[in-house]
Amino acid sequence: MTVEKNEELESLRQKIRTLTSEIMAKVQERTELARQVGEVKGRLGIDVKDERVEQEIRLMVARQAEKSGMDKEFALRLLNILLQESELVQKKGRPQKARQTHLGIFRKAKQMEAEGKRIIHLEVGEPDYPAPAQVGKALSESFAKKQYHYTDTRGIPALLEALSKQAGVKDDQVMVTPGGRFAVFSAIAALVKPGEEIITIEPAWPAYRECAEFVGARTRVLKTTMEQGWTPNLSELASMINENTRMIAINYPNNPTGKVIDKKTMAGIVALARDHNLHLLSDEVYSDYSFVPFEGALSHNYDRSIVVSSFSKTYAMTGFRIGYAVASADAIQKMAKVQAVGITSVAEPVQRAALAALGQDASGNVDLVKKRLAFLSSKVKEMSLRFVEPDGAMYVYPQLPTGEDMELVEKLLEKGVAIAPGSGFGDSYRQFVRISACRSEEEMAEGLAIMARALQGN
Amino acid sequence: MTVEKNEELESLRQKIRTLTSEIMAKVQERTELARQVGEVKGRLGIDVKDERVEQEIRLMVARQAEKSGMDKEFALRLLNILLQESELVQKKGRPQKARQTHLGIFRKAKQMEAEGKRIIHLEVGEPDYPAPAQVGKALSESFAKKQYHYTDTRGIPALLEALSKQAGVKDDQVMVTPGGRFAVFSAIAALVKPGEEIITIEPAWPAYRECAEFVGARTRVLKTTMEQGWTPNLSELASMINENTRMIAINYPNNPTGKVIDKKTMAGIVALARDHNLHLLSDEVYSDYSFVPFEGALSHNYDRSIVVSSFSKTYAMTGFRIGYAVASADAIQKMAKVQAVGITSVAEPVQRAALAALGQDASGNVDLVKKRLAFLSSKVKEMSLRFVEPDGAMYVYPQLPTGEDMELVEKLLEKGVAIAPGSGFGDSYRQFVRISACRSEEEMAEGLAIMARALQGN
Repeated sequence: MTVEKNEELESLRQKIRTLTSEIMAKVQERTELARQVGEVKGRLGIDVKDERVEQEIRLMVARQAEKSGMDKEFALRLLNILLQESELVQKKGRPQKARQTHLGIFRKAKQMEAEGKRIIHLEVGEPDYPAPAQVGKALSESFAKKQYHYTDTRGIPALLEALSKQAGVKDDQVMVTPGGRFAVFSAIAALVKPGEEIITIEPAWPAYRECAEFVGARTRVLKTTMEQGWTPNLSELASMINENTRMIAINYPNNPTGKVIDKKTMAGIVALARDHNLHLLSDEVYSDYSFVPFEGALSHNYDRSIVVSSFSKTYAMTGFRIGYAVASADAIQKMAKVQAVGITSVAEPVQRAALAALGQDASGNVDLVKKRLAFLSSKVKEMSLRFVEPDGAMYVYPQLPTGEDMELVEKLLEKGVAIAPGSGFGDSYRQFVRISACRSEEEMAEGLAIMARALQGN
Repeated sequence: MTVEKNEELESLRQKIRTLTSEIMAKVQERTELARQVGEVKGRLGIDVKDERVEQEIRLMVARQAEKSGMDKEFALRLLNILLQESELVQKKGRPQKARQTHLGIFRKAKQMEAEGKRIIHLEVGEPDYPAPAQVGKALSESFAKKQYHYTDTRGIPALLEALSKQAGVKDDQVMVTPGGRFAVFSAIAALVKPGEEIITIEPAWPAYRECAEFVGARTRVLKTTMEQGWTPNLSELASMINENTRMIAINYPNNPTGKVIDKKTMAGIVALARDHNLHLLSDEVYSDYSFVPFEGALSHNYDRSIVVSSFSKTYAMTGFRIGYAVASADAIQKMAKVQAVGITSVAEPVQRAALAALGQDASGNVDLVKKRLAFLSSKVKEMSLRFVEPDGAMYVYPQLPTGEDMELVEKLLEKGVAIAPGSGFGDSYRQFVRISACRSEEEMAEGLAIMARALQGN
């Protein structure tokens, strides 16, 4: 190694140091300007986030990167980090409404129960009917047979085979996960980078947004309305897609609205994903609880779709924490890497239990929930609340006549009835609440009578 | 909203656009310089990563941020993103050695077994003795009692109470996790931000590095050597701490070396963490398998320590995937948020099984492993391999006389013996392999005889 060559390196490094310092100075200047923008917006009462302005600057940076030969992905990622910081700086000093989800209420309700209070649980999607008897048998057998060892990250071969057969895909297109939630988590963590974007359709189960936030991705929200029967607007969806978009997350039958979109709308979403080469995360954990014809993402043969399923709802196995994902072998491989980092593999006795459940007939559960949902709907109608009759899932999502969700939720919790705040499924839905149909008609009737009185101010 | 005020906003936005464009141009220029540095380094045969150069630039940026009033944390995070990109650009075109871990070998071995081959498993730390009978009973009972529902994210109250009592802490200082791995994952994800740093002491279980990489944090490695009895050098550790450091991860009894550090060294590490306000992640899953006096991190009363434990090793419950973390209530709360996003809660039947295990005497398991380790050590000595006699855990980590780990590992796998490559525990340990003492003496003797022949070129 000659001195001359070291000088070459040192000179380059000196230039890098100078440039780094200049970059930081400009970033600081930029942050200061963002702060000023925040002040002006505060005076004018304008929302901090402006999608149009962001989109403009994103296009500008993309064009600049193309012209200069800069890695476009890196440029856009860096931009999103600057945008995030700007948003943070602008939000400082603005009052933030805390987001309360159904799980937060569930936690409170559990605490109250621990203190000896009786709670009617209409806040979570947790069936009160039992898991199939064969599940218990499989649990005991797994212990007797010493089937409690590390398994392949994706799952035990027998379960992977059964699931892939059921889905009509190859073995390597399936991964067993600790709940549908970790299937969502691993899909987003494996396929979306920090600074990239994911589109969710709200109201929605908060997991998509939470997982996106966790990996530092940005969530763009397509809002749907009760007035339009919770149907997503395809042209609006199309207008939200940009060069930084990586994934669309959908969930039908929908939690919380119970909506099932028609074939044409589903095909439209798949077409948009295909045209822009986006991953399509289709959470179908309620597919067995669909009371209208439902065709999942798999029937559209789009190789960038990731279908999330679970044993929780169909077989009343919520507390077993077991679900699975079906996707391309490539996506599953990437998701398996996330699972290997986080948990190694799913508990083997639980996998054995799930395998036993697979053979069982769950139609009784579906009929029961359908009947309960009809009962729940009729009771909510009696309260004169507006809602769209659910096509599936386990919930009714009515609009409150006045006031905000958390006022009612807290009032009811004091009276021993737990329901879920509508805003847990999207900031725009503070006028809604979600009521679950997982309890007996008697229990629901009791809880809803208390709710009816509360709505009348009693 | 007046036109005048909109103009104010528009003028600020225009300035932001201009600045953004300038930032991107400078970043592009910086990346180009990094590429040139990479070329020079390639010609000179120098490593891509240069900790000294990075540390210089980090100090420069920290000072600049302090002077200019820029948020220092954001500045350093941004810098690390630039450094990561530089590293990536410099690494392009350089040959990369793939990292193979014990789990990769385990997966291969499992595949071979599925194809009908017989494998002697000396690659994983998975006991062959059974879990306590009470665990099986608890599993069956949990089903009979319908104890398979969502639980509090941190765990069922009875288990939290038992664990906190055992650790001598309050209830809210414990969280039950799906394996010790997720305790590590949630600690790193909750407490270390992208671009921040974590120090690991190698050779080490790869999970710390993997989790850090997953969250976009940087790993700094303190290397230990066989010659120094695997004792970490405290002044070297001190010199690695900078303003961007957030956590030190330690693991004693150590996987893979079996090392247990003395009280003074442990106190020194805790003191360094305390002085710099760092989180101390102490993975103590092998604490019951310590054959010398071992005092865990809890005995040092440092409120930023996170102790990771597991039921896997002590009770032979690897495939149940259950572990736990003990930390400050504040850290546990943050970790619980990560767990809520990823998995909601741990399977309730598994939690019930763990609770049943807690009451059982595991000293027989410990005695057995101690005996097996002594046997394994004597056999490895017979092969004339150099290693440090383990103080605990379940492994021997000998140095190979010649050649690299993967050559031997692959050769042995073909012959039906699975051992772990040393480099899975750190890039600097390609001359080492890890042999596990989790099988019977007969099986180990058989596997080690094949290994001895392979080392002699047969």
